[in-house]
Amino acid sequence: MNLITVGTVAFDSIETPFAKKERVIGGAATYIALAACHFTKSCGLISVVGDDFPVAVLNEMNEKGIDQQGLQIKKGEKSFFWAGKYHYDLNSRNTLVTELNVLANFNPVVPPSYSTPDFLMLGNLAPDVQMRVIDQIPARPKLVVLDTMNFWMNIAMDELLKVIAKIDVLTINDEEARQLAGEYSLVKAARKILDLGPRYVIIKKGEHGALLFDKHNIFFAPALPLEEVVDPTGAGDTFAGGFIGYLAQSQNISFENMKRAVIVGCAMASFTCEKFGPERLFEITRDEINDRIEQFVALTDFEIYVEE
Amino acid sequence: MNLITVGTVAFDSIETPFAKKERVIGGAATYIALAACHFTKSCGLISVVGDDFPVAVLNEMNEKGIDQQGLQIKKGEKSFFWAGKYHYDLNSRNTLVTELNVLANFNPVVPPSYSTPDFLMLGNLAPDVQMRVIDQIPARPKLVVLDTMNFWMNIAMDELLKVIAKIDVLTINDEEARQLAGEYSLVKAARKILDLGPRYVIIKKGEHGALLFDKHNIFFAPALPLEEVVDPTGAGDTFAGGFIGYLAQSQNISFENMKRAVIVGCAMASFTCEKFGPERLFEITRDEINDRIEQFVALTDFEIYVEE
Repeated sequence: MNLITVGTVAFDSIETPFAKKERVIGGAATYIALAACHFTKSCGLISVVGDDFPVAVLNEMNEKGIDQQGLQIKKGEKSFFWAGKYHYDLNSRNTLVTELNVLANFNPVVPPSYSTPDFLMLGNLAPDVQMRVIDQIPARPKLVVLDTMNFWMNIAMDELLKVIAKIDVLTINDEEARQLAGEYSLVKAARKILDLGPRYVIIKKGEHGALLFDKHNIFFAPALPLEEVVDPTGAGDTFAGGFIGYLAQSQNISFENMKRAVIVGCAMASFTCEKFGPERLFEITRDEINDRIEQFVALTDFEIYVEE
Repeated sequence: MNLITVGTVAFDSIETPFAKKERVIGGAATYIALAACHFTKSCGLISVVGDDFPVAVLNEMNEKGIDQQGLQIKKGEKSFFWAGKYHYDLNSRNTLVTELNVLANFNPVVPPSYSTPDFLMLGNLAPDVQMRVIDQIPARPKLVVLDTMNFWMNIAMDELLKVIAKIDVLTINDEEARQLAGEYSLVKAARKILDLGPRYVIIKKGEHGALLFDKHNIFFAPALPLEEVVDPTGAGDTFAGGFIGYLAQSQNISFENMKRAVIVGCAMASFTCEKFGPERLFEITRDEINDRIEQFVALTDFEIYVEE
């Protein structure tokens, strides 16, 4: 398998200052896989849902090339549910409800057909669950990307640091990077995080774009300035999915290619913001993705010759 | 004269979470001129100070090519004074003291040698003062850039709209753009502002960079991720000074060249943040500026080929 994605597949209820939607399809792995599948057709999913999760959606994901041998469907149980409310700036939100349901006892099982992935994407989950997936994959993948959040820093920092030491790329938002490193400056925070093990760190700044760091380089990609953000839920996961999907397709993990992958991640994330839930990811075409990537080129391209 | 800068020359007392400095050199025109003079040596200043302002600083500015025929020095009066305190994120601040002093009755006089500028930079001031400068320049400059702030929207919106209708480029921060346009989306806000008269609008987002809009294009330039921001005072004015200084030097006001000018503005602003007040602008060399511009190229440069 080219790419394995681990994470939640769930329901979200979302309230923005402009609208409210109950129980739309959500979950980190949903967004990641739906973004990545536009780039690689060899894409496996490790997750868990209850039998309340619509089979039609799973079938649609399967048609998009998302293999579900690693998806556990628990009879008589309920899928993970999250409800949140966005503030006026849509860059901050409050969690209203978290019902773990099937996630409470999630024991990820890597099926034999998934045991030698080239690329492994560990979406936001309890660090010990992320570690159990790493432990089941005997040969080290070409690249392991991990996403996490402040919640795990607050309650499971030791486990989180252990898993961070085992991965190649950490994706994390700006506030979380500051918390993890104990540094306000993102440059200093990134350097401290690189000392924890990863070779790369990506700091996601929501509507303000994303920064890619290795020990020697910094690359910045903006978010696309949108006329209207309908719902930013899943934008960070979509970013991660576009990023790893592009890398998995191109099989090239140089810093130069990671820069392209960050741009692709930002392009994919911009689609997610245009409608509630992952709706846009189901409908976008390759042409739309190409046009969007070209918008990023136009947005950031300049040539300058310095004068002595 | 190639470039005329209008604005305050003043004292600032600045408190950050990390340090405090009393009565450093400040003022919008100070920062603008000190940034622009690295690019054009034909640079005139229209402003007012009291006789408390140090002659040594004026001499230093003069040595950097900043002509002061338009600078009024009021005997027995005090220079404009501002004191502010930054919050922990350094992206927001409170004004503690504003003493208008000489600014209260400032009547700008354009000397004959300044009457045909190629470029005119109207730094943040009361809109009617900005208008009085425009009215004294008989032939329209090649480009007029105006900076303003929310204070004038609150107390002098009619005068502000009149002067905005007469200029080519408005520079404004994100919150102020939202207030002026009554739109939260910066894309929509920019479009509404362009309908007010200017051909270009630059939305400054502090540590999150700057957006340049005309009716058909958007360009984004990041702020340089700094290890340490010592004092962001004057960064927006320095940006404007680098922007118009670069344009004045190159005499090219195409969108392509404005993109370069925005990058130069961001590069110059990054220097200002490194020390208190405009100290870095006095000491930086052409080599340092060139290196900084090349850091921006490295930070944003990518090549991507879209696949069908």
